[in-house]
Amino acid sequence: MIGTMTSPMTRPFVSLLTDFGVRDMSAAIVRGVVLGIAPDAEVLDITHEVRKYRVRDGALMLWCALPYLPVGIHVAVVDPGVGTARRPIAIRTGRGDVLVGPDNGLLLPAAERVGGIDAVRELTASALHLPVVTATFHGRDVFGPVAAHLATGTPFEAVGPTIDPATLAPSPLPHAWVGDGRLETQAVYVDTFGNVKLSAMVADLEAALGALRPGDPLELDLADGRTLRIPWSPVFGAVPVGAPMVYADAYARACIAVNQGHAADALGLDDDLGLVVRRG
Amino acid sequence: MIGTMTSPMTRPFVSLLTDFGVRDMSAAIVRGVVLGIAPDAEVLDITHEVRKYRVRDGALMLWCALPYLPVGIHVAVVDPGVGTARRPIAIRTGRGDVLVGPDNGLLLPAAERVGGIDAVRELTASALHLPVVTATFHGRDVFGPVAAHLATGTPFEAVGPTIDPATLAPSPLPHAWVGDGRLETQAVYVDTFGNVKLSAMVADLEAALGALRPGDPLELDLADGRTLRIPWSPVFGAVPVGAPMVYADAYARACIAVNQGHAADALGLDDDLGLVVRRG
Amino acid sequence: MIGTMTSPMTRPFVSLLTDFGVRDMSAAIVRGVVLGIAPDAEVLDITHEVRKYRVRDGALMLWCALPYLPVGIHVAVVDPGVGTARRPIAIRTGRGDVLVGPDNGLLLPAAERVGGIDAVRELTASALHLPVVTATFHGRDVFGPVAAHLATGTPFEAVGPTIDPATLAPSPLPHAWVGDGRLETQAVYVDTFGNVKLSAMVADLEAALGALRPGDPLELDLADGRTLRIPWSPVFGAVPVGAPMVYADAYARACIAVNQGHAADALGLDDDLGLVVRRG
Repeated sequence: MIGTMTSPMTRPFVSLLTDFGVRDMSAAIVRGVVLGIAPDAEVLDITHEVRKYRVRDGALMLWCALPYLPVGIHVAVVDPGVGTARRPIAIRTGRGDVLVGPDNGLLLPAAERVGGIDAVRELTASALHLPVVTATFHGRDVFGPVAAHLATGTPFEAVGPTIDPATLAPSPLPHAWVGDGRLETQAVYVDTFGNVKLSAMVADLEAALGALRPGDPLELDLADGRTLRIPWSPVFGAVPVGAPMVYADAYARACIAVNQGHAADALGLDDDLGLVVRRG
Repeated sequence: MIGTMTSPMTRPFVSLLTDFGVRDMSAAIVRGVVLGIAPDAEVLDITHEVRKYRVRDGALMLWCALPYLPVGIHVAVVDPGVGTARRPIAIRTGRGDVLVGPDNGLLLPAAERVGGIDAVRELTASALHLPVVTATFHGRDVFGPVAAHLATGTPFEAVGPTIDPATLAPSPLPHAWVGDGRLETQAVYVDTFGNVKLSAMVADLEAALGALRPGDPLELDLADGRTLRIPWSPVFGAVPVGAPMVYADAYARACIAVNQGHAADALGLDDDLGLVVRRG
Repeated sequence: MIGTMTSPMTRPFVSLLTDFGVRDMSAAIVRGVVLGIAPDAEVLDITHEVRKYRVRDGALMLWCALPYLPVGIHVAVVDPGVGTARRPIAIRTGRGDVLVGPDNGLLLPAAERVGGIDAVRELTASALHLPVVTATFHGRDVFGPVAAHLATGTPFEAVGPTIDPATLAPSPLPHAWVGDGRLETQAVYVDTFGNVKLSAMVADLEAALGALRPGDPLELDLADGRTLRIPWSPVFGAVPVGAPMVYADAYARACIAVNQGHAADALGLDDDLGLVVRRG
């Protein structure tokens, strides 16, 4: 594991990630329902400000967060298909977590990060749901209650029948393509500092271009026709304030930043933009 | 009760709802003061992003949330009259909660949702307040401390003298008017998804128009002169992406949505707009 | 102490203040790392919406909050110099808190508010950090873990060697200058209500102008050439809705507000603007 989890949790641990927004009361209601069922749970909000319906954003943030959270029950709800036939699921991971949410790819990258998929079940056991399940708020009526029951010791097998992992909706995170001297990737997320996260890990970048040393110039051919020349720089302070850099973010992902600036605005980048990276 | 509160809370439960904003430290200070007095309390933030001074918004969110929260002490502060003669109050509900906040209608709809008003008292017992009560931050100096003392077992009667419920400031939530084949209502809140909540419950709508079946066309005559024809649709997935629908939100309230879109922007609606609903 | 801390905390107390933003998962990761090490800790988020890189904003909010929080470990990260030679530090205060964060002035005003600096140490003991310390996320890799270890009882002396307080980066909060009948000050923060906090305490204002009575007219000569005449008014309700007032905020700081309005927008004020206050 990445973190220093030196002490076992003395209380069951539940995390929540949604696109419900911090202005509305919906996220708090899920927390309240969890605490009503599992009053001893430690409930952590990963974020409730995932952009609306952006399953990929939520999947990426869960991927970032999970290795640093205690082993527990993790509820994620970015669910444009609520009320349709998409399945509500729970995934047990190799690390011992259970991930609870819709079958739309949201949970898959995080599951891979904490030991991979051990088993998947569909949430059909209505005794673990609220008595009335509405068509529009499964976070409150299904996912939260199931997570809370799991947190109190209800066995994983009780949530519903097994699902073949091969039938799950695929991960929304695109892969990078490692070529000989070139990496094909795309922007996948702009964080609140304006840093642009790519679909590639630094390991992908180095597999394509060889080992990188601080200051190595890189050439970025953007899908919009522009070419940027930006140095590889492992730390913010190594380039002047306002200067761009390609670096490893704190999750070993390849990212584009501007020292103390907003890279996406300064360089005119946004998520989905494709790019090819070569040595410059 | 609506939720499945299977376990009694092992710690006292306190919820907070304010318009203090998540950028500033004010909401956290209320939480800190509560924990300083009641260190074992479980403190849940319903929201601190109620729009400034919008008592109706806060009242609606508290109305939505309370049935799903454990029985406890609930502090709500949207208080444009802080520092004036408006009374600080506590309401004991039929369910056993105590609601703490200003006497400006903010607490009333929620109290009705959890068993109604059992008793009301004015918060005059200064021994339960912070030693210095400022003119501008009663959340920290009065409401939070009183709630924390109640959470630790201080009797309700100790907060101050009885108030006649008939003297309380009225609820800020307007009613809907049920006619013969027509419902007069108004928009009361646009949530962060852009869904437009009305002053009417679905029960009001069906009292006016008779039982509704999926796909039934409705005609909405707006106070701005426009007429919209929108189908009744209980689930998002039953209309195409981008299409409007009238539906029951997860609280059985009549709402207007656009499937995977922002109804208020797409249809040019905002809260306060009046409308008459008929069968179309 | 300001608050009524009647009960000792039964769990270790950790607070967090950052500019990481509520949309991203970074702040939750710090909380998760703290709970992984100190599972019994009560973790309170002061705010994660400090404006990016605004050390002064963070310092002011920590100054406001700390006297109202339980004695504990307080982590603050607004850290434009992350990855450079700026030192990671811990400050033990006279009240018994430990403040953990970068040596850039962020922690100093708050430390002065809770008993002053008792001792300072540099966070060099890598056994208390995560196994891998990245160049860009010391909140997760250094500050959070050190705080959590302190919360579980690790002695303050174990975090690293002593630092001479005289070598610390200075406070980012400017002082006010008290003259004979005039106060020179500046705006330092606009809160989410639009209230404009000054660098001066009310005690400074009264030291310069003598005791103030409600309604006393004040003349504000702004550095942009304008002169405003605004009354001293201790409570919002004492001026009409929409009218400006100078008042003591809930921390005894001199502030400019508009009753139920947004003073910064209404009066064209922003932080950093200098002003001289006289009797009008």
